[in-house]
Amino acid sequence: MSTKAYAAHSAGQKLAPFALQRRAVGPEDVRIDILHCGVCHSDLHTVRGDWPGIRFPVVPGHEIVGRVAAVGDSVSRFRPGDIAGVGCMVGSCLRCDSCCEGLEQYCDHGFVQTYGGNIFGGGETTYGGYATDIVVDQRFVLSVTHKGDLAGVAPLLCAGITCWSPLRRWRAGPGSRVGVVGIGGLGHMGVKLAAALGAHVVAFTSSEGKRREALSLGAHEVAVSRYPEEMRAHANSLDLLLDTVAAPHDLDTYSQLLKRDGTMVLVGIPERPHPPIGVVNLIIKRRAIAGSAFGGIAETQEMLDFCAERNITADVEPISIQDVETAYERLQRSDVRYRFVIDIASLRDELLHAWRS
Amino acid sequence: MSTKAYAAHSAGQKLAPFALQRRAVGPEDVRIDILHCGVCHSDLHTVRGDWPGIRFPVVPGHEIVGRVAAVGDSVSRFRPGDIAGVGCMVGSCLRCDSCCEGLEQYCDHGFVQTYGGNIFGGGETTYGGYATDIVVDQRFVLSVTHKGDLAGVAPLLCAGITCWSPLRRWRAGPGSRVGVVGIGGLGHMGVKLAAALGAHVVAFTSSEGKRREALSLGAHEVAVSRYPEEMRAHANSLDLLLDTVAAPHDLDTYSQLLKRDGTMVLVGIPERPHPPIGVVNLIIKRRAIAGSAFGGIAETQEMLDFCAERNITADVEPISIQDVETAYERLQRSDVRYRFVIDIASLRDELLHAWRS
Repeated sequence: MSTKAYAAHSAGQKLAPFALQRRAVGPEDVRIDILHCGVCHSDLHTVRGDWPGIRFPVVPGHEIVGRVAAVGDSVSRFRPGDIAGVGCMVGSCLRCDSCCEGLEQYCDHGFVQTYGGNIFGGGETTYGGYATDIVVDQRFVLSVTHKGDLAGVAPLLCAGITCWSPLRRWRAGPGSRVGVVGIGGLGHMGVKLAAALGAHVVAFTSSEGKRREALSLGAHEVAVSRYPEEMRAHANSLDLLLDTVAAPHDLDTYSQLLKRDGTMVLVGIPERPHPPIGVVNLIIKRRAIAGSAFGGIAETQEMLDFCAERNITADVEPISIQDVETAYERLQRSDVRYRFVIDIASLRDELLHAWRS
Repeated sequence: MSTKAYAAHSAGQKLAPFALQRRAVGPEDVRIDILHCGVCHSDLHTVRGDWPGIRFPVVPGHEIVGRVAAVGDSVSRFRPGDIAGVGCMVGSCLRCDSCCEGLEQYCDHGFVQTYGGNIFGGGETTYGGYATDIVVDQRFVLSVTHKGDLAGVAPLLCAGITCWSPLRRWRAGPGSRVGVVGIGGLGHMGVKLAAALGAHVVAFTSSEGKRREALSLGAHEVAVSRYPEEMRAHANSLDLLLDTVAAPHDLDTYSQLLKRDGTMVLVGIPERPHPPIGVVNLIIKRRAIAGSAFGGIAETQEMLDFCAERNITADVEPISIQDVETAYERLQRSDVRYRFVIDIASLRDELLHAWRS
């Protein structure tokens, strides 16, 4: 049985239909008929070949929600008909310290990316969620219990967990003051999740136009970064700054906003380096700049359950697979509120149409 | 009664004799006849005017050990004849959160530097330890219980505590692996203290000549940073990296040596910025780069008591006050094992000689 997908066949080429063969469902496997797949900025970087070591053809997509179609003999957590999710990884060694602690994203041997294969190279190429179905080891499949429309759940699998993991690790909650830098695909989830966790949330955006939106997402305060006096008002006030901006920017402007022992967490990878950091800013208040990579399976499940209980989803613009290039162009201009999500029905319809004609 | 001191009268001028008036001993004050004063790299930066806001004349010196000469009516912790120490600060607001937590170096209102006055400007200029005596509020005076020669105790008051504070905060001890970058005035104390705390210590030096010395200071392993294969051998292995190098250098070379969740702590302030940091290195292992400023009074006392019990002192080269300029020149070339300490008897002798002639 062939899986219908969209792939970039070489760097910079437009996505085009692609047929691939998923593996047969093994004892530990779950086959999922994909319903929705979010469009992450990483997808764009990958199909354009911005990063080294990308193996084409690439089928992007690691914000996947679908319906379980089949399960292997050893699978007890899922049954056909269940709603399930798959995020940024579909495998890891499962034996190293990080894997044993439920932080498979930091696997000593490199996790297996949902598309593009092993992060350290080697192994087989994997194909992602711009496809009609996917077969994944049950240990990397999440249970989705959201009611209602599932399109807004898909971005939780990358954008959501990438914010949730540092919010939890650095203990965002009642009594803490959390800044979120950049109100886009990641940042809008950062604001929603930090507020839902009970933190006082300050949103930082370069866009005057997002001031009101950030408040409606749940921010208690907003600062527009181009106004120095708005930034100064938050000096030495934050316990945690979640910086979701991947474009190179001055980190000192933000590190100054941290309290003593505060941490600024970078979750975006800039194409060119950020300007040099100001060491004095770190020393005089024992501040730290850290990085964080999406999240482990256990914490992803925790986040999904938390969001399902509170009916938290991403704000999305549903698109057809045929419109993905237009979406990429708009994404490049940050013209999206706040995540494009592909309705995979559009891919099945294409298949059906081709078969009929 | 006039205090004899050595001062820089303007930026870049050589130190010269200077007479100053210490305040009368108030109820909370301790007057200390200074015995030894360490020569910190900050002294050199200050007298040369490398930093903004320096008010001349400057009497440097913030690694002070001496004998208590007089105490105010409210002082119970010290008696005349006691050996006492003074470090980098002689005052703070004593009311803000950091002060109440015993972390006066992070005082919200700026601590008062032992020389040069308030770190945020304003207030009176203070004069440091290149002097025959000093008057300090008892809350900023440390008790010294070391036996034997006290010259090696003086550097504990800045070099020692600057290493101790991050080692304690980031829990260096049995089972942890600590790297110390730069084996100089600070770094040699970092190695001694980390080893005494029970950590496995790896010393990093750019100098082949310091390989054997680092081992004799207590390092379990040494890597010479100019040999990439020696650096690679420590990749992903350290819980904490104490980076004492103030000269601009590539932080990525070191951040790669941290385990998941490891922290690299910068304690030196470079004159020009370090090269930009590699964000990927931080993200893929949730690593952090932090800063740390010397230490609070309580932790300084803790460190002094720990060192006295184990007879830990700095390795020093005693000098006369009259040789301080030569010492500065050698310090500039990193030609010191590992700290110059001024024998303040040489200053008293000069006074005596002048009085006789």
